[in-house]
Amino acid sequence: MPPEAGREQPGALRCCPHYHEAVELLGRRWTGAIVAVLLDGGPLRFSEIAAAVPELSDRLLSQRLKDLEDRGLVVRDDPAGPAPHPRYALTQMGRELEPAVRALRSWGRRWLDTPASTFRPA
Amino acid sequence: MPPEAGREQPGALRCCPHYHEAVELLGRRWTGAIVAVLLDGGPLRFSEIAAAVPELSDRLLSQRLKDLEDRGLVVRDDPAGPAPHPRYALTQMGRELEPAVRALRSWGRRWLDTPASTFRPA
Repeated sequence: MPPEAGREQPGALRCCPHYHEAVELLGRRWTGAIVAVLLDGGPLRFSEIAAAVPELSDRLLSQRLKDLEDRGLVVRDDPAGPAPHPRYALTQMGRELEPAVRALRSWGRRWLDTPASTFRPA
Repeated sequence: MPPEAGREQPGALRCCPHYHEAVELLGRRWTGAIVAVLLDGGPLRFSEIAAAVPELSDRLLSQRLKDLEDRGLVVRDDPAGPAPHPRYALTQMGRELEPAVRALRSWGRRWLDTPASTFRPA
């Protein structure tokens, strides 16, 4: 049996472009936080999202919500009336990020409060 | 029954800081791609990772691998010998990102080849 039998040829390895786009979309500064907050508590008003992600400026939150609307992950309802309070919600596309968000949350809770220096090679 | 019974008070919503750090770590430009390639084919030489993520420059790959080593996700073996070829592998901490990577890959394959304009609000 050749020594590398059963192991994929390294030449065949390719990073999946859909995954690459997905991870950079969700990982873009503050985007993952906004998606998680909408998963946990949406639909939410702008001020409610801002309160749940306190380090995020209103300017950047506004820009990220616009980006997420443009990408089809978030939808805004614009109610009629004298004092409308639009609310933001995830679309089906956005809600289906839940397994990824849950997996990252578990991983972060397990690993990120331990100093890096104590990690052992596997 | 009050109208908001059973719904968490928006004031109690907070983005989990461990999740936030996790998603921004994995989502940092090219980091998610490198982790996925090491999950699929590691341990790998530098040139093998570079071949699997062709748009990534050697300079940036080198920097990201150093960052991942510093964070405890990647370990490099430095074999002795006249022509050493160090290889990079995920640590236990890095390997445990697999569920998140798998979830993001599924999501990307399902959603990211469809034009955003066709998405419907949920």
